[in-house]
Amino acid sequence: MSGAHLTRYQQLAEEIADGIRAGVLRPGERLPSVRQTCEQRGVSPSTVFQAYGQLESQGLVEARARSGFYVRATRRPTRSVPKAARPSAEATPVAISELVYELLGSTRDAEVVPLGSAFPAPHLFPFDALARSGARAMRRLPASRITGALTAGDEGLRQALRRRYALHGVPLAADELVITNGAMEALNLCLQAVTKPGDVVVVESPTFYAALQALERLHLKAVEVATDPREGVDIGALANLLERQPVAACWFMPSFQNPLGALMPPERKQALVALLARHRVPLIEDDVYGELHAAARRPPPAKAFDREGGVLHCASFSKCLAPGYRVGWTAAGRYAGAVERLKMSSSLATAIPPQLALVDYLAQGGYDRHLRRLREALAGQQQRALRLVERHFPAGTRVTRPLGGYFLWLELPPAVDALALHHRARARNISTAPGVLFSADRRFTHHLRLNVGHPDDARFDAALRLLGELAHGA
Amino acid sequence: MSGAHLTRYQQLAEEIADGIRAGVLRPGERLPSVRQTCEQRGVSPSTVFQAYGQLESQGLVEARARSGFYVRATRRPTRSVPKAARPSAEATPVAISELVYELLGSTRDAEVVPLGSAFPAPHLFPFDALARSGARAMRRLPASRITGALTAGDEGLRQALRRRYALHGVPLAADELVITNGAMEALNLCLQAVTKPGDVVVVESPTFYAALQALERLHLKAVEVATDPREGVDIGALANLLERQPVAACWFMPSFQNPLGALMPPERKQALVALLARHRVPLIEDDVYGELHAAARRPPPAKAFDREGGVLHCASFSKCLAPGYRVGWTAAGRYAGAVERLKMSSSLATAIPPQLALVDYLAQGGYDRHLRRLREALAGQQQRALRLVERHFPAGTRVTRPLGGYFLWLELPPAVDALALHHRARARNISTAPGVLFSADRRFTHHLRLNVGHPDDARFDAALRLLGELAHGA
Repeated sequence: MSGAHLTRYQQLAEEIADGIRAGVLRPGERLPSVRQTCEQRGVSPSTVFQAYGQLESQGLVEARARSGFYVRATRRPTRSVPKAARPSAEATPVAISELVYELLGSTRDAEVVPLGSAFPAPHLFPFDALARSGARAMRRLPASRITGALTAGDEGLRQALRRRYALHGVPLAADELVITNGAMEALNLCLQAVTKPGDVVVVESPTFYAALQALERLHLKAVEVATDPREGVDIGALANLLERQPVAACWFMPSFQNPLGALMPPERKQALVALLARHRVPLIEDDVYGELHAAARRPPPAKAFDREGGVLHCASFSKCLAPGYRVGWTAAGRYAGAVERLKMSSSLATAIPPQLALVDYLAQGGYDRHLRRLREALAGQQQRALRLVERHFPAGTRVTRPLGGYFLWLELPPAVDALALHHRARARNISTAPGVLFSADRRFTHHLRLNVGHPDDARFDAALRLLGELAHGA
Repeated sequence: MSGAHLTRYQQLAEEIADGIRAGVLRPGERLPSVRQTCEQRGVSPSTVFQAYGQLESQGLVEARARSGFYVRATRRPTRSVPKAARPSAEATPVAISELVYELLGSTRDAEVVPLGSAFPAPHLFPFDALARSGARAMRRLPASRITGALTAGDEGLRQALRRRYALHGVPLAADELVITNGAMEALNLCLQAVTKPGDVVVVESPTFYAALQALERLHLKAVEVATDPREGVDIGALANLLERQPVAACWFMPSFQNPLGALMPPERKQALVALLARHRVPLIEDDVYGELHAAARRPPPAKAFDREGGVLHCASFSKCLAPGYRVGWTAAGRYAGAVERLKMSSSLATAIPPQLALVDYLAQGGYDRHLRRLREALAGQQQRALRLVERHFPAGTRVTRPLGGYFLWLELPPAVDALALHHRARARNISTAPGVLFSADRRFTHHLRLNVGHPDDARFDAALRLLGELAHGA
């Protein structure tokens, strides 16, 4: 995706961040002084201050009094990242829904600290501006536009989305966008469009439980593929798997995978799309966290490399702008017609008022400003949570350090029963998402997904501390 | 359902309407004078005038200058109603979706007179009041209520719906309501909750094409049951069918069936629920037209007779209040938990802004006034359309006279190819819904469903006349 829309200071911050990630700048090293940087780069001191400030809010550097900015030592040695799972290559029927419902269904209680939740804190979203946009849009609207809504969705919204993808270097075909009732409906329709009962679908390991639930509902079988906690699906393992058995589809999250937070590098995404195109296997791409990158640039979705219409790209506004509005979409490539027909017969159309509120909001131009603030808040909170995990959890705990999204994936010492820990935490008004939810064969028994999307929740630090203490005894 | 909320004049009008329907008052007969009626009933002249006015707007009586009110001769002899279909009792796989999409998918063009549409005219709905309600509701709302929405839907809306059903004599259990993305999603979730691929589902004959599409999508088989154009499903035929083969569910529209407009009398609904309870077969009840009754009282849904939680009652605001808002619901009896889990994994939740707009609108108290105006407009337009059909369509055309909803079902002379007629009408900018859409085996070849929900559309009369002329040559 293009960096053309970054300001001076963002470009500078991103270059320094890349240097830190690549190891050019090492933990504890001092950044060049503001004066030095001004001279080297030909920029103003305020640009440098803004850049250093952004790096600080991302937790990459820290200011030391009267001394300057230093690269933070938050990166722990490689061994502390969870190990990649080694799933069996056998296809298994899925029966996870009851467990998901039992463990997560009752956690909307306001008393509970939502470490198991799938959503960030509500105060992070511009609901007032959205409500004003909704009121303005509905007042101006002729009745015929409300009832005349097509199954594919409001044309104004589809145009706005196409423009946004094009700015990010992903041109979409005119007819491939279908607006849906959240990304969840998009993913489900796409899965239906490319499978029939009994088919085999490849998912990541661990994988998002909603993917497993969708497979279960459609009577499909899951095969899990080895997935690196940092760089996502192992292309070699996937290639072997495709040689071994007929596969109807892959359902992956190439950017900020849930629960790992893994980000496939662009060249790996490109290789993935090419491999699947050779096998004529469609890729259902769940990109709901794509906008929540900690680095300055949005990572390209796998869709950016799709030449043959084989990628069914799904996303929504639910995680980045408007939870509860249930506006998602799919750019379904050569399957768009099939998806639209399925949408027509399963829910007919997506509600018009939320779509029009979003069209108006996007036209006002505040979306990117909101996203920048949201990303900074999430990145800052991730750093805070990582420090707490390092301090309070048992020795031997491994934890991911995702470059986006708002989840941490913890691999606790093998002796810890994460499901028992979940129940004990629940009794103390803390929810968690235990690892058994994230595979068809309930393998991740000493793993937890933690939501770190709740900055400014005063209860958060204490909850994380308590959870760590409970883990010591579990 | 209770008549306790009818005003004096509505009660009087309804009694006279019942007399006309029962044949006590015959076509051409003069109603008692206003003075006579005042004396007999002990009511005021304005009450009588209002009652006669309502009967006139329903097309049941007509005023003759300086002479009084007369029962209208619109009821044609019994033989002109379409014959009941005699479906085969064989279960057949369904493949109708492509045809539906092809014939109806492109008819939202504003140039086209929408006789084939499934929706009434947009000007019949209070969109301005709904938009004001939506703006008010969203301004007042704490962010946590937007994001905290449960899969089952906004609690305020669920309470408002329960109150409304209770007023109509249908008490719902506290936990059986799930708010959905229109009735279409409700019906689909219910069907999924009670079937697995390969199962047999009983539908009416003819049946709503969306039911056939849902069966097709879920890999189910359809069996059609004999259905009377006036009184709906033949209970004896259904009993035979249930003896012959295992049936996973019935999907029926007991009130104002689409396309027939058939209304099962209360005792037939009761017998249906009892029969299915004996066989432990769930009934998926599509009641989306229940509020659009031409008579003064709302017909009870089959759900009113459900003692064992075997009726999965589905309805929405899309046909009676807020098209495009996509707010429907199901009261799914003992299957409510399963439906909620399916909803969670297929679309997570229903959009909040439209739900809150409806909660606010219902609290303002204008809904019943709106419904009365809507029913009168639809009943008046049905009478107008019936006169045009009688005047302009070929001899031998049979047509239904539904007591609610906004569809007419025409059985044209057997030589007429309704699909060819559809295409010829389409070329003249008139859409129709040809009979082949309404069965799994495409039996209704000389039948048409016509939408008469567009009063005040100046093009309507000419379109119906032209369609009749085209039918002569088809």
